[in-house]
Amino acid sequence: MSPLNIVILAAGKGTRMYSDKPKVLHALAGKPLVQHVLDCAVSLQPQQICVIYGHGGEAVPQAMQQYGAKFVIQEPQLGTGHAVQQVLPHLEDQSRTLVLYGDVPLIQHSTLHQMLQAGDGLVLLTVNLDKPTGYGRIVRDGQGDVQCIVEEKDATTEQRQIGEVNTGILLAPTAKLRTWLGKLGNNNAQGEYYLTDIVAMAVQQGVTVHTVHPAQNWEVEGINNKQQLAALERVQQRTESNSLMARGVTLADPERIDVRGTLQCGRDVQIDVGCIFEGEVKLGDRVRVGAYSIIRDASIGQDTQIFPYSHIEASETGENCHIGPYARLRPGSKLHDGAHVGNFVEIKNSEIGSGSKANHLSYIGDSTVGSRVNIGAGTITCNYDGANKHRTVIGDDAFIGSDTQLVAPVTVGKGATIGAGSTITRNTPDGELTLSRSKQVSIAGWQRPQKGKK
Amino acid sequence: MSPLNIVILAAGKGTRMYSDKPKVLHALAGKPLVQHVLDCAVSLQPQQICVIYGHGGEAVPQAMQQYGAKFVIQEPQLGTGHAVQQVLPHLEDQSRTLVLYGDVPLIQHSTLHQMLQAGDGLVLLTVNLDKPTGYGRIVRDGQGDVQCIVEEKDATTEQRQIGEVNTGILLAPTAKLRTWLGKLGNNNAQGEYYLTDIVAMAVQQGVTVHTVHPAQNWEVEGINNKQQLAALERVQQRTESNSLMARGVTLADPERIDVRGTLQCGRDVQIDVGCIFEGEVKLGDRVRVGAYSIIRDASIGQDTQIFPYSHIEASETGENCHIGPYARLRPGSKLHDGAHVGNFVEIKNSEIGSGSKANHLSYIGDSTVGSRVNIGAGTITCNYDGANKHRTVIGDDAFIGSDTQLVAPVTVGKGATIGAGSTITRNTPDGELTLSRSKQVSIAGWQRPQKGKK
Amino acid sequence: MSPLNIVILAAGKGTRMYSDKPKVLHALAGKPLVQHVLDCAVSLQPQQICVIYGHGGEAVPQAMQQYGAKFVIQEPQLGTGHAVQQVLPHLEDQSRTLVLYGDVPLIQHSTLHQMLQAGDGLVLLTVNLDKPTGYGRIVRDGQGDVQCIVEEKDATTEQRQIGEVNTGILLAPTAKLRTWLGKLGNNNAQGEYYLTDIVAMAVQQGVTVHTVHPAQNWEVEGINNKQQLAALERVQQRTESNSLMARGVTLADPERIDVRGTLQCGRDVQIDVGCIFEGEVKLGDRVRVGAYSIIRDASIGQDTQIFPYSHIEASETGENCHIGPYARLRPGSKLHDGAHVGNFVEIKNSEIGSGSKANHLSYIGDSTVGSRVNIGAGTITCNYDGANKHRTVIGDDAFIGSDTQLVAPVTVGKGATIGAGSTITRNTPDGELTLSRSKQVSIAGWQRPQKGKK
Repeated sequence: MSPLNIVILAAGKGTRMYSDKPKVLHALAGKPLVQHVLDCAVSLQPQQICVIYGHGGEAVPQAMQQYGAKFVIQEPQLGTGHAVQQVLPHLEDQSRTLVLYGDVPLIQHSTLHQMLQAGDGLVLLTVNLDKPTGYGRIVRDGQGDVQCIVEEKDATTEQRQIGEVNTGILLAPTAKLRTWLGKLGNNNAQGEYYLTDIVAMAVQQGVTVHTVHPAQNWEVEGINNKQQLAALERVQQRTESNSLMARGVTLADPERIDVRGTLQCGRDVQIDVGCIFEGEVKLGDRVRVGAYSIIRDASIGQDTQIFPYSHIEASETGENCHIGPYARLRPGSKLHDGAHVGNFVEIKNSEIGSGSKANHLSYIGDSTVGSRVNIGAGTITCNYDGANKHRTVIGDDAFIGSDTQLVAPVTVGKGATIGAGSTITRNTPDGELTLSRSKQVSIAGWQRPQKGKK
Repeated sequence: MSPLNIVILAAGKGTRMYSDKPKVLHALAGKPLVQHVLDCAVSLQPQQICVIYGHGGEAVPQAMQQYGAKFVIQEPQLGTGHAVQQVLPHLEDQSRTLVLYGDVPLIQHSTLHQMLQAGDGLVLLTVNLDKPTGYGRIVRDGQGDVQCIVEEKDATTEQRQIGEVNTGILLAPTAKLRTWLGKLGNNNAQGEYYLTDIVAMAVQQGVTVHTVHPAQNWEVEGINNKQQLAALERVQQRTESNSLMARGVTLADPERIDVRGTLQCGRDVQIDVGCIFEGEVKLGDRVRVGAYSIIRDASIGQDTQIFPYSHIEASETGENCHIGPYARLRPGSKLHDGAHVGNFVEIKNSEIGSGSKANHLSYIGDSTVGSRVNIGAGTITCNYDGANKHRTVIGDDAFIGSDTQLVAPVTVGKGATIGAGSTITRNTPDGELTLSRSKQVSIAGWQRPQKGKK
Repeated sequence: MSPLNIVILAAGKGTRMYSDKPKVLHALAGKPLVQHVLDCAVSLQPQQICVIYGHGGEAVPQAMQQYGAKFVIQEPQLGTGHAVQQVLPHLEDQSRTLVLYGDVPLIQHSTLHQMLQAGDGLVLLTVNLDKPTGYGRIVRDGQGDVQCIVEEKDATTEQRQIGEVNTGILLAPTAKLRTWLGKLGNNNAQGEYYLTDIVAMAVQQGVTVHTVHPAQNWEVEGINNKQQLAALERVQQRTESNSLMARGVTLADPERIDVRGTLQCGRDVQIDVGCIFEGEVKLGDRVRVGAYSIIRDASIGQDTQIFPYSHIEASETGENCHIGPYARLRPGSKLHDGAHVGNFVEIKNSEIGSGSKANHLSYIGDSTVGSRVNIGAGTITCNYDGANKHRTVIGDDAFIGSDTQLVAPVTVGKGATIGAGSTITRNTPDGELTLSRSKQVSIAGWQRPQKGKK
């Protein structure tokens, strides 16, 4: 098999996106459009990948540098044929060249693989549309062989009835492609060099033209505005939710889940409506995710229950934990087995030991909490002194009374008890009760303020 | 009318659910599939109900024991005919037997009632499908009388054009059913005993075969995987939201409401997007439910407003209450008329008197709060001493200053005022100001910590 | 051009709304139905607008008085012709009269403008329906000229095939309209006077009858029940989200955004799923709104990020602010550039200076916070003494330790530091540390309570 070169056209300005960002860097399912194409390209194990970007699109090579692709600028932009001409110096004659588009993000590996298997010669990816208006039609002869591509404006009334249209994605022997591109003219209304003109050249030279269809038409849909971006986002999300359900995940509503990254689920996972998953998320067996929860880059242990409105980021939980409702785990939180984090509780860069509970209205930051600790409502670790962050350490079996402030750096001993409402500024001994408290006094005859008269 | 026996086939393994739970115990609208069928069966007031479960399905009789049905195991599983054979000893000859399916959850009373009225003989429930491929076709003679059911693989090209297909749901005179089942063979590819084979026997014996159609085709859709489960969940939710609107409830978006149980609404109720109702929920006249609220087993008094993101469980409110946003009422909360519970406030197992307010960042647990009480921001009832829970009692007209801890058991007197930031450990007298407070001191020349140099 | 009179029929009882509110006052996209029609009417700059309301509909003129329209009661209600008869005394003969409906809320300016341009004579707004059953058909002669409108029950089989139906919206020379209305009879099953009968009179008099179609059929859909209300709500929301995307706004899901008012967006604005915008909302360039946020009457400065579940009302933020998740800005909040308001924080009627942070579990009410202030977790401004509200002032560069109560009226000096857990009742000096704190003591030999034995 001859080696594969892949060319990705990503120079389009995307004027109708009304954005300062290059079009191909807009995100679909949390990932830039061109990155979808690059990931698919990489999956074909090509010899090399060339990306053509345009003036003002310098952010494209910057954002995608991890792919080790060749980035070539096209300036000025004189059509798709002209774009591919810019990378010709990088392509090798004995290879085949596959042309993809940075704004056609959902092209699938399986479809491209089929193109690679379609045989020698020129391979076109085409689709049959109910409403082909506006697209270049695939004109075939009596034997069914492709003759040429006719653009809408040049098409006869009869040709306009043709439903098979060109997607622009094609595969060509590189040496031939080089020859064809050399002969391209720009004798048309736009004065542009069209890549599609090579089809007629191939036919003229007796090169076989194969055609392949994508499994689904959305694979070849391009994005030129925010409506199309939103439409393909929904396609992608529906594909994702179908795939989750096919693997046995229970979704309360497949139309109300958003996965922007990778969601790995164990057995008997249940996800309620409105949840969002970002980055790499792993849910263990029997995990239940409550409605409207948002989870990013997290690993959730089996049998853990996440109650509604929970917000989890860059954190990890053990088995059998209870989280939420309204719980926020910020980056660096690690819950051990059976830990409970309840409503209006924020955990940041902290470890919560096994069986420990912080159930109400607390802020636990930069802390190491032992096992079986009870953290009362309204507990706050004062981890910041205005300049530096300090750590709080709470020993196993400690009981922190409600509304306690733990002024870090500070250590609460094992089995220690802290009286409600205490400000703890020094380490507290194991097993003892520690508190800071003023005497309760009542003031007889005191008058409560009255509403001011006007 | 001869008495009715109902047989529910619920032995299917549900391999494609990829679950450790028997298929018929998966929930649709918060209720196991088979329970939907059982509830519908019960509504027909049958003499008895028999449920056939399979190996590994012992959880089915356990979960459904409240129905007083006969549970019979089918092991091994040799087809639908074989399944019904297992319950024959329980069926009475003078009765009629209706066969239902545990994984066809949305069959409606009205449709089954129509079957019961269809006349003597064998009654089949059939549907007309646009795409009948894969289903057993209903073959009729020139008079339109049913002749037999032909399975897809045995059908002629002509028969495959038939759009009327068998749903499997049928009603038969029990004595006849017993005879027919006795003659079933398993001479087919799967080596199974098919219930549908009785149709041909009925025709042969000159027994009239009646057919009835369901009002909607989704009534007879079965569930074999999570996609189908999700699809029927949406059907059920759409039915529910249509029914709510038909009764006058204003829904901001009928596609974004989930009812998993029974939702009873008064006049002029408004429900914003994304709300979830579970168990038994009752909303009084003019109640407004804010977006993304979740309400389970609760009764909400008229004119009460629930603001967004509120989470209410096993609680009760009077009239004209304000709840939320971000309020959580945990089980056992009772709000009297005009009570206000505001943002980031958790109420548990407590009574809040009429006109009382806890508007900000508080935890009120195991408490009895009188009328016209003002609970300041950050108030916490310390109801747990690490071993036992204790009660807090707050008298009418009390004013609890912000950030107060009430260490239970404790009583705040009527009209008492508690100074902000107090830790109240002993009962406080009526009408007086009680506080625990340290002297405020300023330390001149004190230096705030500086960022450490590296 | 002759002056324009607009008549809006808004007397319908709306029995099937099952509501105590007049039908035309039910809200669509946050605005009463009749107000949509009034706004559209006003956009045509008519000489006058007359609104006909019915018995029990007195709330209609009350709610809509700002429009300066003439409100005329129709009592009893004897049909659409009778309704228009009630306003005849107010209409001027040299004008043209446009008849609209208070329960047909989405009629567009462009469609009505087309009617005004359609020529002299009678102008009917008609639509072509796939399923015209139930509607009055537009009967035309061989030349295509309108002859009459035939109601369903009076239509011949042939006429029932006609797909073009009457919408009820029409424009007529007022003098002629007056004559025609004077001749209306009620010789029909309902005993009502039908406005549509004037069409036949016009034809008889040789008055040309023009027809105009709306751009979209939903413009002429009426609302008689909550299902239709919800359906048109979705139409309106889809129109709104399409318009936002067309202007370059990135919507994560166009089906999950609700705009009930006016949403103005800068460049590169991103809105995640489930957000709700009410009243007048302005989002600056590059603002990102997190999932499930609710924003009403607010202006958000450029580059500000709003994290999920934030609830913002009648507030204003500068540039580069961070808000949420779970932040609540209540009316009168003003955040200066770079301010941060974090989780479980409530701000009310307060100014937060530039670069200041209140990141966790705080209540800031009636306060003026300077620049670069750090407000620790659990800080509470005690703005209410049970009778009156007082202000808290915090100077630039102050550091408020966690769990501090600031008992208003009180001023914290510039650069002052407040120790964690303090109750601040008096002004604190600039640059110094102020605190109120009890000594931390430990009690050796203390026994934690044990679980009670039973």
